[in-house]
Amino acid sequence: MIRNSAPGSAGLVSTKYATIYEPPEALPLDSGEELSPVTLAYETYGELNHDRSNAILVCHALSGDAHAAGISADTGGMSAADVGFGAKSEGQVDRRQLGWWDNMIGPGKAFDTDRYFVVSSNIIGGCKGSTGPSSINPHTGRPYGLGFPVVTIGDMVRSQKRLLERLGVERLLSVSGGSMGGMQALQWAVAYPEAVRSCIPIATTARLSAQGIAFDEVMRQAIMADPYWNRGDYYDREQQPTVGLSIARMVGHITYLSDESMRNKFGRRLRDREKYGYHFQTDFEVESYLKHQGNSFIQRFDANSYLYITKAIDYFDLANGHGALANALSGVKARFLIISFSSDWLYPSYQSKEMARALRRLGVDVSDCEIPTSYGHDAFLLEEEAQTQMIAGFLAHNLARVRAENGAVAQ
Amino acid sequence: MIRNSAPGSAGLVSTKYATIYEPPEALPLDSGEELSPVTLAYETYGELNHDRSNAILVCHALSGDAHAAGISADTGGMSAADVGFGAKSEGQVDRRQLGWWDNMIGPGKAFDTDRYFVVSSNIIGGCKGSTGPSSINPHTGRPYGLGFPVVTIGDMVRSQKRLLERLGVERLLSVSGGSMGGMQALQWAVAYPEAVRSCIPIATTARLSAQGIAFDEVMRQAIMADPYWNRGDYYDREQQPTVGLSIARMVGHITYLSDESMRNKFGRRLRDREKYGYHFQTDFEVESYLKHQGNSFIQRFDANSYLYITKAIDYFDLANGHGALANALSGVKARFLIISFSSDWLYPSYQSKEMARALRRLGVDVSDCEIPTSYGHDAFLLEEEAQTQMIAGFLAHNLARVRAENGAVAQ
Repeated sequence: MIRNSAPGSAGLVSTKYATIYEPPEALPLDSGEELSPVTLAYETYGELNHDRSNAILVCHALSGDAHAAGISADTGGMSAADVGFGAKSEGQVDRRQLGWWDNMIGPGKAFDTDRYFVVSSNIIGGCKGSTGPSSINPHTGRPYGLGFPVVTIGDMVRSQKRLLERLGVERLLSVSGGSMGGMQALQWAVAYPEAVRSCIPIATTARLSAQGIAFDEVMRQAIMADPYWNRGDYYDREQQPTVGLSIARMVGHITYLSDESMRNKFGRRLRDREKYGYHFQTDFEVESYLKHQGNSFIQRFDANSYLYITKAIDYFDLANGHGALANALSGVKARFLIISFSSDWLYPSYQSKEMARALRRLGVDVSDCEIPTSYGHDAFLLEEEAQTQMIAGFLAHNLARVRAENGAVAQ
Repeated sequence: MIRNSAPGSAGLVSTKYATIYEPPEALPLDSGEELSPVTLAYETYGELNHDRSNAILVCHALSGDAHAAGISADTGGMSAADVGFGAKSEGQVDRRQLGWWDNMIGPGKAFDTDRYFVVSSNIIGGCKGSTGPSSINPHTGRPYGLGFPVVTIGDMVRSQKRLLERLGVERLLSVSGGSMGGMQALQWAVAYPEAVRSCIPIATTARLSAQGIAFDEVMRQAIMADPYWNRGDYYDREQQPTVGLSIARMVGHITYLSDESMRNKFGRRLRDREKYGYHFQTDFEVESYLKHQGNSFIQRFDANSYLYITKAIDYFDLANGHGALANALSGVKARFLIISFSSDWLYPSYQSKEMARALRRLGVDVSDCEIPTSYGHDAFLLEEEAQTQMIAGFLAHNLARVRAENGAVAQ
């Protein structure tokens, strides 16, 4: 099916909230603890087809939320405008209302909402409408703070499985996401092999590197060093740990870009001056940019959630408890499209290639591609064209296989 | 001359202090301000020969000091023990007393103190015995704090020139250093072409990248966010901005290593535990290592000096005020040996290669070499063997040329 019109918008969307566990039922966690109640924020785009074979789950990265596509009817949340170098604006829409992957999800886009039922799920531990450290702890009547249990990517995915069941989806045509979203996609394929027909992990890894853990730890230290963090108990206070969170975000942001993209975008250009200021205010454009990123982030993110989510990322290791990675992957039934980016040094391509090799040795059907780009890790949000070609083809192929299977069964 | 014995130690050394400017004389600064008095800490190894042709200046990096080689008769200071993966220990000597480049400077070493008179100079702006923000401001009788003028690599080198003159050295056989030390070496070759016969910039750049500025700015923000920093006025207080400084050092340390070296050294190994702790204390070895680096650094470094020195690094741009880099380099008379390291992503090899190309186009005699290593930026402190081969040969060649010239003049 060739589309004649230009790709369009997923339209006006609202985030929905599903309380998937309520006492006495509770979500079992990898730590051994339990969580209840559990609410997940999510959005859906497109329609589930009659045989429920066209559902795709999209998972987001550290600072993302359920609003992945279309124009938000709500306010707040991450958006395309928060992305490093900005996605293209769409007509006269305020870019702050566009979903964080709006360039990839919509009619005629990579995740074509004319064909697929796309679910975008938020995560537990976050601060975007799902249960997290800023939620009310039913045992105290106050926000959890550090009383919130440490959660893992496995826990996030376990809760998403329940959400998908509530939406009537027993089996996903595909699960995809970039960065930590890619970790969730991988975890889905491993934890629920029967429920995942295909998997598109992007700019991600089967286990976070020592360097990645190191950056996460430094960011957490920056937050916990903020006197207003107050051991996580700050929700009812006037002063919030915004300075620490802002520094954490600045560190993170450097790791999302690349040496080359920073050179192209900023170089050594000075900010609003012709000569060095010989002071400790802003001299360079890149300093101004980072401060802006830090300052805008604190408007939309919770410091404790930053701690919990980076910890979940650090703990992510598909091989954990399985010995070798191959053991962890041995039950996988999904087909894979693994995408990485040449200048991504936070989740370097070699990690994706290792994963592809491990899967191939197990006989899994794997396509993997390293997209040449200067955008660094942020490329999963920005390299629309190259990703669209690969993802659209991969999904269409998988949908055709499902139809062939279903047709064969019907005969 | 082939040496038969193993390389030895530069011996027991003491740091010396030269007050090179005293009122009414003052060091003119690039900012337009002046500084007086100015003291520089320095050490020397080996003997100046009769025609004063064998002097080599060694310049240190951000956290270095004058104690580059031998065994310190003093206490404190950076040392070989502070280096990322540790230099080899020498006999029973406490490694904390060894100079930071002891593996490179000494009898029979790369900078052979049997042949050369090696001067190691500290920098203004620092906190290791030279005039800096923790020095007493003669106008107030109190430590300068932020009242200390912002200094540049040019200012550091201008003060070192004066020091060398005091030591009876009008012309250097060579000037060398890694990282910010390499910036000083380059600045020497550009600012004092007649005084520099050869230059060995290592793991450095002619101008700091946007990514480098970004990391420096985040580290400064971490320090300035510490409430005990108190706008730089903390010297007479009980509480010091140690937490901010420690976070800055942790960030810095990640940039000195490489993804590969961190994987080799730490991987995902847990610290004193078999399972994840599900808390926000230390889980991984790499976290423990970083915290140790942060905690030991605050014992030996001043937070304000960290601000001033990173600012000088940010401002370093040989082309500044010259238009193109080639214009800045056009007056250079030194021969160059430029060393870079394959896994150094803070001062990537391509920057050294650019510099080598620019010099060659000007007809300058340049050797450049990218040493394959996994050690990252720290390699300039650790890749002893490969550097020794190149540097020893380059220096011997240059000394022979000087002798031939002097012989020719004598005839």
